Amino acid sequence: MLKDLYLQEFLDKTESSDPVPGGGSIAALSSALASALSGMVANLTIGKKNYEDVSDEMKVIAEKMSVFKQDFVLLIDKDANSFDKVMKAYKLPKETDAEKAERSRLIQEGMIYAASVPLEVAEKTTELFELIEILVQKGNKNAQTDALVSAMMARTAILSALYNVKINLGSIKDETFVKDTADKVKALEKLAIEQETRILGLSDL
Amino acid sequence: MLKDLYLQEFLDKTESSDPVPGGGSIAALSSALASALSGMVANLTIGKKNYEDVSDEMKVIAEKMSVFKQDFVLLIDKDANSFDKVMKAYKLPKETDAEKAERSRLIQEGMIYAASVPLEVAEKTTELFELIEILVQKGNKNAQTDALVSAMMARTAILSALYNVKINLGSIKDETFVKDTADKVKALEKLAIEQETRILGLSDL
Repeated sequence: MLKDLYLQEFLDKTESSDPVPGGGSIAALSSALASALSGMVANLTIGKKNYEDVSDEMKVIAEKMSVFKQDFVLLIDKDANSFDKVMKAYKLPKETDAEKAERSRLIQEGMIYAASVPLEVAEKTTELFELIEILVQKGNKNAQTDALVSAMMARTAILSALYNVKINLGSIKDETFVKDTADKVKALEKLAIEQETRILGLSDL
Repeated sequence: MLKDLYLQEFLDKTESSDPVPGGGSIAALSSALASALSGMVANLTIGKKNYEDVSDEMKVIAEKMSVFKQDFVLLIDKDANSFDKVMKAYKLPKETDAEKAERSRLIQEGMIYAASVPLEVAEKTTELFELIEILVQKGNKNAQTDALVSAMMARTAILSALYNVKINLGSIKDETFVKDTADKVKALEKLAIEQETRILGLSDL
């Protein structure tokens, strides 16, 4: 799994002409980094003087961020493998009409799956914002910028994942699916931008 | 060095109550990821059919991105260590007036250094945009979203690094330095937002 690479190796592998990990995996990694950084802010608040009142709330947030972090770590690989079904379908025989139809059906099925993975990354990442907001408002003031960085990483993760959804939609023939997903994409883009702006606005910096 | 951690370990270390790596290191890592992803787009263009005309230009960009990537990898650690001078100065004796003055001077020197590292990250990251623009316009169309993700990661890296500059400015007493740096911060924030918007606007997605 990609999490088992050294950071340097991961960067080198990204840079290489191997198309994975690509932008979709980097989006999931950004979400994992946002979760980890938010987890740090919570952990730097728990048990600290002047923050006794929020210690229990911070413990809950730290636990949630830890779960998010690992979910996004899995999504780094899930995105890297999301095109496997499409690639496998492309290699199927296309001699007879029946073969052609089956191959085409499986390519389309693979494309829909490939669009669904970055959509999952984007949707899950939106769940971070309400927790980050609490961290900015009630967390250790010395780590407030870390919570702000977390909000920006989440925003960029969402927009990045959504570009990967949009590019896949271009190859999908199911018009209802395309229309519904494009609507979801627009709503998520709007939400990511608004949430980032709102959270950054909570700080005096 | 942090690059020598497994990706999972790096995320776990970020999450822990150890304040480093924090938002400043994550900013430098985002710049490294932006460089790596842009490098991939260039590498996926070199020698490809229909892209013969831009192959040489892409080779130059791939090489530059590789250098940027490693520069930012070093900045991940440089940021993590940027507070060491301040911490060391805080531990100095403060019995006599002379000791107090020297301690205070060294704390201020350390603070100025701590502000200079994320400023270096932000300034260097702005150099990526003109190369990313070429990748979006002339690079392999199949990897265009990766170049767009790269632009967004660069924008967020810059804004994140600049929050770390701003928080440090609050502790610096040299008014001329504070004023000059605050002006630089504002200009860089504006540039990052404008460049991202402009580059995303080059795509039909």
